[in-house]
Amino acid sequence: MPNPTAAMLVIGDEILSGRTKDANTNYLACALTEAGIDLKEARVVSDDQAQIVDALQALSGQFDHVFTSGGIGPTHDDITADAVGAAFGAKVDIRDDARALLATHYERQGMEFNAARKRMARIPDGATLIDNPVSIAPGFSIGNVHVMAGVPTVFHAMVATVLATMTGGQPLLSETLKVFIGEGDIAGPLGVLAEANPDVSLGSYPFQKDGVYGSNVVARGTDATRLKSVMEQLAKALGVERG
Amino acid sequence: MPNPTAAMLVIGDEILSGRTKDANTNYLACALTEAGIDLKEARVVSDDQAQIVDALQALSGQFDHVFTSGGIGPTHDDITADAVGAAFGAKVDIRDDARALLATHYERQGMEFNAARKRMARIPDGATLIDNPVSIAPGFSIGNVHVMAGVPTVFHAMVATVLATMTGGQPLLSETLKVFIGEGDIAGPLGVLAEANPDVSLGSYPFQKDGVYGSNVVARGTDATRLKSVMEQLAKALGVERG
Repeated sequence: MPNPTAAMLVIGDEILSGRTKDANTNYLACALTEAGIDLKEARVVSDDQAQIVDALQALSGQFDHVFTSGGIGPTHDDITADAVGAAFGAKVDIRDDARALLATHYERQGMEFNAARKRMARIPDGATLIDNPVSIAPGFSIGNVHVMAGVPTVFHAMVATVLATMTGGQPLLSETLKVFIGEGDIAGPLGVLAEANPDVSLGSYPFQKDGVYGSNVVARGTDATRLKSVMEQLAKALGVERG
Repeated sequence: MPNPTAAMLVIGDEILSGRTKDANTNYLACALTEAGIDLKEARVVSDDQAQIVDALQALSGQFDHVFTSGGIGPTHDDITADAVGAAFGAKVDIRDDARALLATHYERQGMEFNAARKRMARIPDGATLIDNPVSIAPGFSIGNVHVMAGVPTVFHAMVATVLATMTGGQPLLSETLKVFIGEGDIAGPLGVLAEANPDVSLGSYPFQKDGVYGSNVVARGTDATRLKSVMEQLAKALGVERG
C-alpha cells in the first residue's frame, strides 16, 4: 500500500518578505519522512484570506493530510482560523473549551484575559483542539487539515501530538554515497541504475567547496536491503569505495 | 501603481524529504523586497512532471513573474526543462547556443562533453538563456518564467542577472519595534493603528527566549516617513521608548 500523502501550508507575510526564514517546513518534512507519510508539496502564502482559502481547498482535496503553520495568535494579522472556517463553511467563534484553557492559564499568570487573548479561543465548529504545552493557545484539526502555530517550539509540540494520531506507512529510508566526481560523469551509470531499479528513487546533488567538487548520490526507498544493493552497484559502476 | 508580483517554485524531492533545507526562497524574498517586487507565494514540488506543470501554469497565470530553482543538472532526475516545455507547449531540444557555451567550457577543463552534460543544453524553443558565471550550464527565461539552478551560488548569480532586466516598483521598507510586552497586551492598540493606517502593513511576531518574552512589531510600506510616524504612534500608545 502506498504511504499516505501530505502537504504543508505556511501562512505569513514575514516569510514572503524575507524577514523570517521558515524552518517549520524542514522540521515537518523530517518528521513525516520518519513517520512514513510522504510530503508532496509545500506552499507559503501571505496573510490574505482569499489566498489562504484557495490553498486550503486545493491542498486538502489533493492530499491525505494538510499541515498549516502561522496566523493563530492574538493580533489583527492572525486570520488563519477565519480563513479555515471560510474554506470549509464552518462557523468560527470563541469556543468554551478553548476559552476555559486560556482563562485558567492567564489567571495563573496574573495576566488579563482581554479581548485580544480571547481571539485565540476562536475555533471553527466541529474542529478538535490540538494541545499547546508551551503557551496554551491551542491549534485545531478540522477534516484533514491540522492548524498549528508558527512559533517553532509550539509547532514542534503540535506536530508530535498530531502525528501520534496518524497511521503512517513505511518510513522512507535513505543511503548517501559521496563521490568526488562531477555529476556529468556519474549521470550515465546513475540513469541506467535508476531505470533498472524503479523501486529505489535515485537523486544526485552536486557540491563545490574550496575548489573541491563532487556529488552526493541519495537512494531513497522503504527497503534497506534494496538501497544497500543499489548503492553497492553504483559504487562498483563508478569504481569507488563505499565509505 | 502597485508593485509587480512574483512567485517562487522550488523543484526537488530532497527539499520535501527534509534532506536539504531550501535557502533559495529566503534569498529571493530579500532580493525582491529590495527591488520593489512583491513575492506573493512560494511552492515546493517534487521531481514529478505533472506536479511541476500544474504549478507552473497556475503561478505564471496569477503573478507577473515566476522564478524556479532546481532540476536543471545533467542527471536523470533533472526534468525541469522538459516540464517547462510541456507547460508552455514549447519543443525542448539541445540548442546550439547553450551547446557552444558548454562545449567550450568542458574543452578548457579537459573534460569530456558527454551525453549527460549535453542534457544541460536542452532549452525550450523561444527561451532566452540566463548566464551562469559559476558553472556555465545556463538557466533560461520563457514568457514570465525564469528557470534557475538549485545550487545556491549559481541561483544567486542568476537572480542578479534576471533582476537587472526587470522594472521594479518601490522597495518595500520596514521598521521594527521590539517590545518586552506579550502580543496579547499589544494586540488592542496595534489593531486600532492598523485600521487607521491602511497604507502601512503591521505585523506582530512573538519571541520567547531564556524566560524573556515579547513581540517584534514590524511596519512595512513604501514610504519611510509614514512608517516612522506609525511606529512613533505605536511606541506612544504602548508607553515604550523607540530604541
